[in-house]
Amino acid sequence: MEEQNNKLKFIALSGTVSVTENLYIYEHGDEMVILDCGVGFPDIEMYGVDLVIPDFTYILKNQHKLKGIVISQGHEDHIGAVPFLLNELKNPGKIEIWVAPLVNEFLQDKFEEFEIKGVKVNIFNPDTDIFSVGKFTFNPFRVTHSVPDSCGFAIDTPQGRVFHVPEHKMDQNPVDNMPFDRSKAERLASEKEVLFLASDCIGANKDGFTENERPIEQNIEKVARNAKKAIYFTAISSNIGRFQQAINVAERLGKKVCFVGRSVQRKCELANKLGYLKYKRDTVVNLREAQKKNLQDIMYLIAGCYGQVGSSLFRIATGDHNRLTIDEGDMVIFSADPAPPYTKESEDFVIDNLIDMGVDVHYYDLDEGLYVSGHGKKGDITELFKITKPKYFLPIGGTVRFMHAYKKLVSECCGNEDQVFMLKPGDVLEFFDGKVNRGKSIPVKEVLVDGHGIGDVGKIVLSDRKTLSEHGVVIVIVKIDVKSGKIRKDPEIVSRGFVFEREEKQFLMTSAKSLKNYLNKKGKVDRRSAKFLTVDFLNEHFFKETARRPMVIPVIFQE
Amino acid sequence: MEEQNNKLKFIALSGTVSVTENLYIYEHGDEMVILDCGVGFPDIEMYGVDLVIPDFTYILKNQHKLKGIVISQGHEDHIGAVPFLLNELKNPGKIEIWVAPLVNEFLQDKFEEFEIKGVKVNIFNPDTDIFSVGKFTFNPFRVTHSVPDSCGFAIDTPQGRVFHVPEHKMDQNPVDNMPFDRSKAERLASEKEVLFLASDCIGANKDGFTENERPIEQNIEKVARNAKKAIYFTAISSNIGRFQQAINVAERLGKKVCFVGRSVQRKCELANKLGYLKYKRDTVVNLREAQKKNLQDIMYLIAGCYGQVGSSLFRIATGDHNRLTIDEGDMVIFSADPAPPYTKESEDFVIDNLIDMGVDVHYYDLDEGLYVSGHGKKGDITELFKITKPKYFLPIGGTVRFMHAYKKLVSECCGNEDQVFMLKPGDVLEFFDGKVNRGKSIPVKEVLVDGHGIGDVGKIVLSDRKTLSEHGVVIVIVKIDVKSGKIRKDPEIVSRGFVFEREEKQFLMTSAKSLKNYLNKKGKVDRRSAKFLTVDFLNEHFFKETARRPMVIPVIFQE
Repeated sequence: MEEQNNKLKFIALSGTVSVTENLYIYEHGDEMVILDCGVGFPDIEMYGVDLVIPDFTYILKNQHKLKGIVISQGHEDHIGAVPFLLNELKNPGKIEIWVAPLVNEFLQDKFEEFEIKGVKVNIFNPDTDIFSVGKFTFNPFRVTHSVPDSCGFAIDTPQGRVFHVPEHKMDQNPVDNMPFDRSKAERLASEKEVLFLASDCIGANKDGFTENERPIEQNIEKVARNAKKAIYFTAISSNIGRFQQAINVAERLGKKVCFVGRSVQRKCELANKLGYLKYKRDTVVNLREAQKKNLQDIMYLIAGCYGQVGSSLFRIATGDHNRLTIDEGDMVIFSADPAPPYTKESEDFVIDNLIDMGVDVHYYDLDEGLYVSGHGKKGDITELFKITKPKYFLPIGGTVRFMHAYKKLVSECCGNEDQVFMLKPGDVLEFFDGKVNRGKSIPVKEVLVDGHGIGDVGKIVLSDRKTLSEHGVVIVIVKIDVKSGKIRKDPEIVSRGFVFEREEKQFLMTSAKSLKNYLNKKGKVDRRSAKFLTVDFLNEHFFKETARRPMVIPVIFQE
Repeated sequence: MEEQNNKLKFIALSGTVSVTENLYIYEHGDEMVILDCGVGFPDIEMYGVDLVIPDFTYILKNQHKLKGIVISQGHEDHIGAVPFLLNELKNPGKIEIWVAPLVNEFLQDKFEEFEIKGVKVNIFNPDTDIFSVGKFTFNPFRVTHSVPDSCGFAIDTPQGRVFHVPEHKMDQNPVDNMPFDRSKAERLASEKEVLFLASDCIGANKDGFTENERPIEQNIEKVARNAKKAIYFTAISSNIGRFQQAINVAERLGKKVCFVGRSVQRKCELANKLGYLKYKRDTVVNLREAQKKNLQDIMYLIAGCYGQVGSSLFRIATGDHNRLTIDEGDMVIFSADPAPPYTKESEDFVIDNLIDMGVDVHYYDLDEGLYVSGHGKKGDITELFKITKPKYFLPIGGTVRFMHAYKKLVSECCGNEDQVFMLKPGDVLEFFDGKVNRGKSIPVKEVLVDGHGIGDVGKIVLSDRKTLSEHGVVIVIVKIDVKSGKIRKDPEIVSRGFVFEREEKQFLMTSAKSLKNYLNKKGKVDRRSAKFLTVDFLNEHFFKETARRPMVIPVIFQE
């Protein structure tokens, strides 16, 4: 076969530069496999946008080649965009998906939300199974990460064996008891020459190994023992190991556990179903039961650890939750470090609001040992280099700075910089006969999606518009009277591409009045609270009134 | 004298909640003294706004009482708003200001920039002087901080002695050789009962003491020894100690030093004049001379350590500096941690841009020991508690979370929580006969000022408008063609309160075209680069064309 048709193409469609939004394509001749299909998170100034998804243009143009989708783990930045892709494919019933058991549960839950039916999902056992997708054969092996059933793969391609490890730590004693399967990875690497290693680079500028997470449990207990009233514990909803630790503590302290927020509730239930999250039969109670108990007998596991606008924790901190209120003397435990600049501002807003209400808040800055990253560091990364001994190195899952750090690491540890290929979104590598060339890059953009309320507000509205400009941009200028902390004048709302001109004026005027009334009910507002509350209110208001979700940009003045 | 006229009022006009923007008022009867008068920094979404200043309304209404302004140290968040206040006072020539020698130099430099004349400035020696402002007597003592000549004060008021320490570390061996004067503070505290301590709380949630900064020098040297071409070293311009360390390294390595950016150049020259910054006569060269040298013989000390839009470093990283270009193989050393969320995004943009150009960048995440905070931690704070033994505690210079942490610290260390008073901007405490009450709060707002270009673009334009709305808001919607990375359509510009309606349309259309041309000259742009470049361009463009500076809000789409 001539070179052109026998080349292996590796396409970093997205997942480099943006950290999240993982989507890689393996392509050979007329066959194509997708590895991971995740969402990203919006920039801080894209208020009202909740998700960014990869640009599927190339996949849709070549969908006749698509043999299947393989998912490495259950985080949103690896599986979150699957429903969006399936909805765009002409014949989604033709596509098979391969996932480990917990990922299957998360995926089926998504399919239910998005009302997707008839997709064939194959569940593989990461310890024992080997599976083929077209001419690609996948040998999964376990890696340590912050969600159970996370995998790396040794993939046999027509151009040789490659290793693809989206995230990993080497820790051999994780809370979920699913450590990096070192002996299997070593065996897979020793069987054949490894053409390339595509692996996570985000820890490539941090010395040492990522710490073991077991001590977190005793740190949670130490904090929780001092709770005077109810405890609210929050972490990323997929961090099953962390919730296990919180539940262990609750059980030891004789507290009941109550899940608040759809994402936490569903993910914990699904993990429990598989036996990955264990609790006594009577430990978990529903919200109605919880509210009958004494406050000190309850630990809420609550969604919204980044203070996301509209999340359960956000609503509690702003006094807007319809069933739950938090009070002075209650305790909130954050087991999540913010990822600045994306989430820090909203997390800080929620933390400060809670502290101001007299809540005893335990958060990232206090160094109480309540959080460990799911990502490896230099030590974890170089171990993988040594296990796989690849010919080429492809840093993935990190921005420019991490790719450069990974490149340096290769040269320090086991190779030279020429062996490293840094890919930006859409970049293509072509492998043939052990050699590699850069192919023609594919133009890709960030696709903005409104997934507002995913995981928390129940039923999802799928608005898979191509760009936000279709739903428009609304700029709201709010002026706070500084003496009273109240809004005196109706806010001014400027819109572009949102509602029809004829109807616009009246509607925007009414909206402005509603916003004013809402903010004035909140007591005194300042610039920061007015900003977040404005976005939360208008997101809901516009959708209720127009079934559309424009990007809301607040501009707040005091006068 | 009856109680009403004999009360001591302590007014936290600003400086709590916002960390920066320090301004405290001591008032008794018909006399009022201001302690510190600093600027704050804008929120991340306030593009085009460079400064936030305190709300002077209360001061202006009571200016007949104002006896003087005392400044504790030379950072912008302590002295930056002095010119703005003086410009608003009816009779600024009547007001006296008290400062230590370096603060005087920084202040005189500001007066020159702002063309302020005839203000009486008294220079005090922090080691030996005592001075009175009206009926308040100030006993300064040195504190360790990140700028030389930083002071705390024991103030004798008609209601007793109080301690006011805006920032401090206890470190006895700082680079500037001006350590916290422990014995003087102890003496001042032992002479009289201390009514209250108002002191910095921002480290109150961090264990231990802030580390000594001397080891930074050898870390800079370690990094600098590996430089293959030119070195660019950046830090906050007032961090004289850090520049001293960089210069020491440059001299040991036989390199010349060149200041780039007005703020760094002026501050270093002024510190040198006082003997606080020392270098050999031939060490410092100007830019023209520097550019004649071999690259490896030059260390630039450059402004813009937070990647501020429009700063020298920003312009170099975007290829827009008119005299200087940076190339592959050059080295940039950041001795500044970003203060998220305010500065992280722009600092990261500059770092990533430089790394992408092949520059060897040493920045906060690499943990190379290139930075130590100027703020104390729990240990530093509790030492001050123990030295002063006050009746009441007033946490200042930190947000809600730090005030609460400080309160907790008091109860853990040497008192109980009832002794602590947390003040939000505008809050008033009234002291009489050893007792304290909360007075009626003063309504205050954040005043947005355009100080664009301070320190870097030379001559300053003073636009001390009351609120930004007077200069207007401009929203720019830029659409990037994702295939080419170019702007195809003219950006859409929506403005409010910026230019007159009649002239508006044509002017905004021309501006949009100019912006398009500018961005298209930059090669491929993505969302992030388009955002920052748009703001930088329009800031300059609007000012050149209209002598006004609207707030520029970029909304970037890819299509």
